[in-house]
Amino acid sequence: MPLQIELISLNNEVFRCFMGWSAVLVLKMFGMSLLTGLWRFITLTFANPEDLMSPKLKVKFDDPNVERVRRAHRNDLENILPFFIVGLLYTLTNPSAFIAINLFRAVGISRIAHTLVYAVVVVPQPARALSFFVALGATAYMALQVILAGAF
Amino acid sequence: MPLQIELISLNNEVFRCFMGWSAVLVLKMFGMSLLTGLWRFITLTFANPEDLMSPKLKVKFDDPNVERVRRAHRNDLENILPFFIVGLLYTLTNPSAFIAINLFRAVGISRIAHTLVYAVVVVPQPARALSFFVALGATAYMALQVILAGAF
Amino acid sequence: MPLQIELISLNNEVFRCFMGWSAVLVLKMFGMSLLTGLWRFITLTFANPEDLMSPKLKVKFDDPNVERVRRAHRNDLENILPFFIVGLLYTLTNPSAFIAINLFRAVGISRIAHTLVYAVVVVPQPARALSFFVALGATAYMALQVILAGAF
Repeated sequence: MPLQIELISLNNEVFRCFMGWSAVLVLKMFGMSLLTGLWRFITLTFANPEDLMSPKLKVKFDDPNVERVRRAHRNDLENILPFFIVGLLYTLTNPSAFIAINLFRAVGISRIAHTLVYAVVVVPQPARALSFFVALGATAYMALQVILAGAF
Repeated sequence: MPLQIELISLNNEVFRCFMGWSAVLVLKMFGMSLLTGLWRFITLTFANPEDLMSPKLKVKFDDPNVERVRRAHRNDLENILPFFIVGLLYTLTNPSAFIAINLFRAVGISRIAHTLVYAVVVVPQPARALSFFVALGATAYMALQVILAGAF
Repeated sequence: MPLQIELISLNNEVFRCFMGWSAVLVLKMFGMSLLTGLWRFITLTFANPEDLMSPKLKVKFDDPNVERVRRAHRNDLENILPFFIVGLLYTLTNPSAFIAINLFRAVGISRIAHTLVYAVVVVPQPARALSFFVALGATAYMALQVILAGAF
């Protein structure tokens, strides 16, 4: 078995794949902030008095477009952020490169799909449920592998 | 002092303990998503029009069972996710194995207890407050050790 | 190019700077939990029946002071937590120490400023927007560097 140093390395294609998808998913999440802001300006829905650009506006919390993006964003927090630690620790268990790389791709692509069908163009179910469960399943599998290599 | 490479290693019992509890807590958090979904179906409380299974249903945001699990889940985001980076960096400061392992156990067990008394079987206070502060205190202690080893 | 082992090391000033700011930002985030609790007690705004200290109280969800701190805290989850993985992976790309250290400082200082102007003393816009975008821009730049070193 290689030392962990050889695993946390730009020479390890598994680690480089983890880097690529992690950074893409962070940028995707930042896109949710910008999309929320965009909808706030389009619908003039601001949550703080100091954000109101005119004395005629009042704070509002219930615009369906803003809230939809916020729900999608919260779902990212619940699923993508745990992937970051699990993917890193899974890389350190020295997994099969083929399996690991395709799991990272599955998480990355399915979370991008989740955003598209939830917050960009609303697609009927089960589109969102499917994309949700692919990423959840892949991350849960990695977590199980980390547990098998871990201790308590 | 050992090199950090010897710390990020399956041969380091502190690191393996961090791996085990981190992965367990990620699975626990995913359990919150499933529990939220379960309550949504039991109480027919759906937040998106495309989730409604019958034209008689309307979107709903105020079911107390759904909202209770969502509050517990958000509390996880606020406390467990910061633990992931702090625990990893704390491991790299080469802490006493005895202290580090028991801090990880304290965080893991108290966060599981927090979920049980908040979102599974509601237990009167101070059960939830106690489990909350044990994990917070342990993570804050680790953060202070990381700051002492860090720079600005 | 150095091995990644030399990068994840207390001898690497970039890594130590990442450690210091990460741990400070975690403690800052925990401060949001305490500030939320403080406002809950001041305004007697409790979200759970088991938290009510008197039978005369009822659960409440709409206190503006509590909700303001909660919005600031959620903004931390959306921006600081992604910084943790991006900052770590960026450190592993062996960046210029000058650039990396100042990016970490920019994120740390601007996120502390964001909290101060949002949740402690409300300062008119664009104070909050500026602090938000400095941290977002710095983290997004790091994410792009990680993508360039990564794979898919």
